[in-house]
Amino acid sequence: MRPNDRKADQVRPIKITRNYTAYAEGSVLVEFGNTKVLCNASIEDSVPRWLKGKGKGWVTAEYGMLPRATHSRTRREAANGKQGGRTMEIQRLIARSLRAVVDLEAMGEFMITVDCDVIQADGGTRTASISGASVALADAFQHLIDNGKIKSNPMKGHVAAVSVGLLGEDVLCDLEYVEDSAADTDMNVVMTEDGRMIEVQGTAEGEPFTHTQLLALLESASKGIAEIVTAQKAALEN
Amino acid sequence: MRPNDRKADQVRPIKITRNYTAYAEGSVLVEFGNTKVLCNASIEDSVPRWLKGKGKGWVTAEYGMLPRATHSRTRREAANGKQGGRTMEIQRLIARSLRAVVDLEAMGEFMITVDCDVIQADGGTRTASISGASVALADAFQHLIDNGKIKSNPMKGHVAAVSVGLLGEDVLCDLEYVEDSAADTDMNVVMTEDGRMIEVQGTAEGEPFTHTQLLALLESASKGIAEIVTAQKAALEN
Amino acid sequence: MRPNDRKADQVRPIKITRNYTAYAEGSVLVEFGNTKVLCNASIEDSVPRWLKGKGKGWVTAEYGMLPRATHSRTRREAANGKQGGRTMEIQRLIARSLRAVVDLEAMGEFMITVDCDVIQADGGTRTASISGASVALADAFQHLIDNGKIKSNPMKGHVAAVSVGLLGEDVLCDLEYVEDSAADTDMNVVMTEDGRMIEVQGTAEGEPFTHTQLLALLESASKGIAEIVTAQKAALEN
Amino acid sequence: MRPNDRKADQVRPIKITRNYTAYAEGSVLVEFGNTKVLCNASIEDSVPRWLKGKGKGWVTAEYGMLPRATHSRTRREAANGKQGGRTMEIQRLIARSLRAVVDLEAMGEFMITVDCDVIQADGGTRTASISGASVALADAFQHLIDNGKIKSNPMKGHVAAVSVGLLGEDVLCDLEYVEDSAADTDMNVVMTEDGRMIEVQGTAEGEPFTHTQLLALLESASKGIAEIVTAQKAALEN
Amino acid sequence: MRPNDRKADQVRPIKITRNYTAYAEGSVLVEFGNTKVLCNASIEDSVPRWLKGKGKGWVTAEYGMLPRATHSRTRREAANGKQGGRTMEIQRLIARSLRAVVDLEAMGEFMITVDCDVIQADGGTRTASISGASVALADAFQHLIDNGKIKSNPMKGHVAAVSVGLLGEDVLCDLEYVEDSAADTDMNVVMTEDGRMIEVQGTAEGEPFTHTQLLALLESASKGIAEIVTAQKAALEN
Amino acid sequence: MRPNDRKADQVRPIKITRNYTAYAEGSVLVEFGNTKVLCNASIEDSVPRWLKGKGKGWVTAEYGMLPRATHSRTRREAANGKQGGRTMEIQRLIARSLRAVVDLEAMGEFMITVDCDVIQADGGTRTASISGASVALADAFQHLIDNGKIKSNPMKGHVAAVSVGLLGEDVLCDLEYVEDSAADTDMNVVMTEDGRMIEVQGTAEGEPFTHTQLLALLESASKGIAEIVTAQKAALEN
Repeated sequence: MRPNDRKADQVRPIKITRNYTAYAEGSVLVEFGNTKVLCNASIEDSVPRWLKGKGKGWVTAEYGMLPRATHSRTRREAANGKQGGRTMEIQRLIARSLRAVVDLEAMGEFMITVDCDVIQADGGTRTASISGASVALADAFQHLIDNGKIKSNPMKGHVAAVSVGLLGEDVLCDLEYVEDSAADTDMNVVMTEDGRMIEVQGTAEGEPFTHTQLLALLESASKGIAEIVTAQKAALEN
Repeated sequence: MRPNDRKADQVRPIKITRNYTAYAEGSVLVEFGNTKVLCNASIEDSVPRWLKGKGKGWVTAEYGMLPRATHSRTRREAANGKQGGRTMEIQRLIARSLRAVVDLEAMGEFMITVDCDVIQADGGTRTASISGASVALADAFQHLIDNGKIKSNPMKGHVAAVSVGLLGEDVLCDLEYVEDSAADTDMNVVMTEDGRMIEVQGTAEGEPFTHTQLLALLESASKGIAEIVTAQKAALEN
Repeated sequence: MRPNDRKADQVRPIKITRNYTAYAEGSVLVEFGNTKVLCNASIEDSVPRWLKGKGKGWVTAEYGMLPRATHSRTRREAANGKQGGRTMEIQRLIARSLRAVVDLEAMGEFMITVDCDVIQADGGTRTASISGASVALADAFQHLIDNGKIKSNPMKGHVAAVSVGLLGEDVLCDLEYVEDSAADTDMNVVMTEDGRMIEVQGTAEGEPFTHTQLLALLESASKGIAEIVTAQKAALEN
Repeated sequence: MRPNDRKADQVRPIKITRNYTAYAEGSVLVEFGNTKVLCNASIEDSVPRWLKGKGKGWVTAEYGMLPRATHSRTRREAANGKQGGRTMEIQRLIARSLRAVVDLEAMGEFMITVDCDVIQADGGTRTASISGASVALADAFQHLIDNGKIKSNPMKGHVAAVSVGLLGEDVLCDLEYVEDSAADTDMNVVMTEDGRMIEVQGTAEGEPFTHTQLLALLESASKGIAEIVTAQKAALEN
Repeated sequence: MRPNDRKADQVRPIKITRNYTAYAEGSVLVEFGNTKVLCNASIEDSVPRWLKGKGKGWVTAEYGMLPRATHSRTRREAANGKQGGRTMEIQRLIARSLRAVVDLEAMGEFMITVDCDVIQADGGTRTASISGASVALADAFQHLIDNGKIKSNPMKGHVAAVSVGLLGEDVLCDLEYVEDSAADTDMNVVMTEDGRMIEVQGTAEGEPFTHTQLLALLESASKGIAEIVTAQKAALEN
Repeated sequence: MRPNDRKADQVRPIKITRNYTAYAEGSVLVEFGNTKVLCNASIEDSVPRWLKGKGKGWVTAEYGMLPRATHSRTRREAANGKQGGRTMEIQRLIARSLRAVVDLEAMGEFMITVDCDVIQADGGTRTASISGASVALADAFQHLIDNGKIKSNPMKGHVAAVSVGLLGEDVLCDLEYVEDSAADTDMNVVMTEDGRMIEVQGTAEGEPFTHTQLLALLESASKGIAEIVTAQKAALEN
């Protein structure tokens, strides 16, 4: 049995709070159970040097974890003097996922940085970051439209992500920390709202996984992502 | 007139939420108007090397600002590869202020780190950090008592802090960002609950200040801090 | 048509040279067409601190690229003062892939570091690194056996990897640089010699990919990896 | 009794040597007893980027300590790869103090950096740095006048600083190292030559201090600073 | 007796392989016995900022060692976060040596960086780097000529280097690792093809050396360098 | 003609001041004309980890330059976050030179660090550092003897250094900055007091130098060093 009597294919309760902080053009607190990530989208009126004058925009992301977001305290990366490999891997993934649903030509010479800072971590922080960042990004684009900077929304749709895993014979959707630690295989799936895939990252922590298991994992992810997209849409309609 | 019709000696609305996150032994979200700081106290069952075997504990602090806590985005210190001078100055101040109200001998060989992370900044983040960290620290010590690790509370009382400033002829208490930017003199005062001083840091940004002005600033701070201590006590009684 | 009249499912000519340098306990130059990676496995008679006294070993990896392995010169990471995000992501992948085929308990308290340094890059350097590192690791374990340090080989089988991609409608196996740059989707697949999966990392660079496309990519990867395993086995039999 | 039979309110012997080194536009060795700091002011014919084209100048400061300025050797910050928190705190204080007596508009688009390097440390290095830097800065501005670059001196007066402290019941002025280590409260005061305050930084190391004690400390500082200003003026008249 | 029955004044077998990698404008693998260094010369169509608009070019060098080029594994400098003192010393030497035989005015506003990466180290890696880099540089200049970017070769001749040493009474030429470790004095000599000196760096590891010994070392070096120049010329004639 | 009517083989006026600062076990200000270097030797009662328990001591050195030791201000290395290549090269040279005259076995398990900090630079700072450090080291060893830590002096004699150069046809001894900048060849020579060589580092900045020129340079260096040794001995006899 999963904690809180969750079913194998059940996503944790999702809560998406928009305008969570006052200054960011898009500010979303996303919660998947006990995992809480603050996603702030910041618009800058210029692009990186290598993009200058090409009439295109850019979307990027940074990821961080508050030192005590975790069960025991993690050393602060700023104090360490560098971002760790895991952080870099995750922020590159978030950024790629967001760019996959944005028409960079259509957004004009603006740059949007989405900061995903984990307030509390209980598994699935990278997928929660992507799912929350998509909403923050939508708000930031709306801000550009409302201010007459661009005419139409350059987002082609929502992007959402979930982690799925194999625990013994079971395929579990939206792993929380204790499940993630115990899983043999952990897979992060990023999809568009129409069910196509942007990223699939499956890793065998213990035994390698078979083709059949992969298909089962993808099916579970697909179902979970549909629920997340529903929550994203509901949040944006409020 | 001050924003929101505040009076010159009036502190912003204070909100202190305990147990804000799930894992830290003391976790406090402190709000002074729009300034919001998350103060997480983490207990470690060991002390820094230079303190080993002396039967004493240690209290330290780290400070950070989420990139979009501010009106325009600030570069992430972890990405910069180092903490800036302002950050270091602030976290040293917070740590000294906390240690001033702790009997390090009485706390045993434990180390407590209080992470003060600014979620939203509207002036006075360092004083809010101190005021919130004091409550988080109290909760962490209670945790040690509840778990039979220490017998009595090594805190000698609360510590609270406020910024005061000179704007033209006016002495203002608890500056918010627009006031802080305009002030000629800015002073941070840290006091114990019985009204004695732990730190006084006054800086003339424009014109130097006189002895008379200094006295007026201290009086205003003293009054403000009394209000903050009341809020701290109320929060701990809940 | 692919360069050199390659067929869509055809892997580039593979060359695996063992004992390429004189000192490493396993030293393999692996070539996939113009991609050339030197994989040196080094044995150390101790384990990382967090593993001490647990009777287990550890396998890790580092990845680097000579500055002029690429078409235009890349800045040297040592001169930059840090390893980039891409490097960290890759070396974490290589290390996980190798550990997936090693019985860490059985290898005793040794640590093996496999350095994968790219001499020349024409696409697929991370997958070539994994495929070459597997052979270098096998040689390093044989070295431990030959010296009476361990009794039997703790490797459960070979691990090999290949990149596959979607270029328009075509599924291509073992992408070289020009293909990789043009591909809509790029997927790195890491498998054991018995065809089970260790890592699947698919990324849509342009359009998202469908479930059907994913299946086609996996099939192509599976076929390519079988060829690579054959080459690994042949190399080890010489 | 204080070392060398000093009285409680007595400043150590002050020695200010101008033109101490050959190249700096202002070069002052300042000595307070055994504390010796070399203050070199360097003029640059440009301003930081964010000030360009505003017709204003800038004054900044850097602080360092030779490794064996102290009783036991301190690690070299350049070898450590970063400046410590204490260094940053001090150099920010020196710079603010100097800017408080300079009319940045009147100085034109020049930048002056004052390097304060401690040759020998016996307490009060930050206050000695400020007092010496004021003279070096005056010489640098005279250099600009002598070379026809500016017409009149943009300094509004001298700035001087002293540390005062509470040792038991006693208020001591200009603490040397052994006193500083033993003091319950340590306060650094920076004043203009007309007795107004630029910075007041008081810290309780042991017991918090009362309002009455604060007033006594300020009075002692005020008296000490008057002596230092006299020494600064005498030095500049030579 | 020396290893492999080498005579005291005998250089190890030299092998110079041009076009070793595919992309660099000059790519040379140089081997002195077991010491193997890959020297890649990269042309950039611009010069460092401080040289802009002066009609001159620049030649520089970087040096690195693969982690397992040595008997036991050396930590990767990129992972350490900085280049060590030895690396910096060596790359500065290589660069100075190369510039000594280039007419920087004649080469136009191009910059050439020669990366010397040690694949396998058995003593003399810095001198092998210089000797190999000279050939790679010649190829790079030929590339500029072939592409009509410059008219004539700005190299004034070859530059070659060798290490010589004192082992007891013996003067040995081209030290390999075991000899280098045992030598009392180690001297690196860099010469032009006409026998004039560019660099002489002699270091007494044990006993200081006499004037007579210095002369004997230089004579041995001079003879060895003549052989290396012959090998360089032969390589370029192929 | 040289500045100040110096003759070609004439060393600048040498001034060696012992006990320049109060805390270091050996503290020497050495001056060669306008070049002034403070050499502080610090004794530590332990050795680096790799030397522990071998009954041997260690001598090392660090080198730094105050930012305004030079004609125009140089950026502070501590602020840059790393020591430059030139600094590392120089401090390695100083350390090797000192160790060459010390019997490390005889000095016991102590470590001495000599910090050479350039107060004012007018050419020859590395050679002045070595010449001054030798005296500071002698004082530090005397301190160990006076305190009964070691019985006899482990220094085998003085070590001194000078730079010589070729300016056109002239061989000049002890180059000052303007000469050093103009010289075709610059050679640093480190010798023991009995005239044997520890280091010879000659570099052709312009034209390569001949064997005859090398001999002339060495002769000039040898004569200059004899004068420096005389000054060292005189300083130690005071």
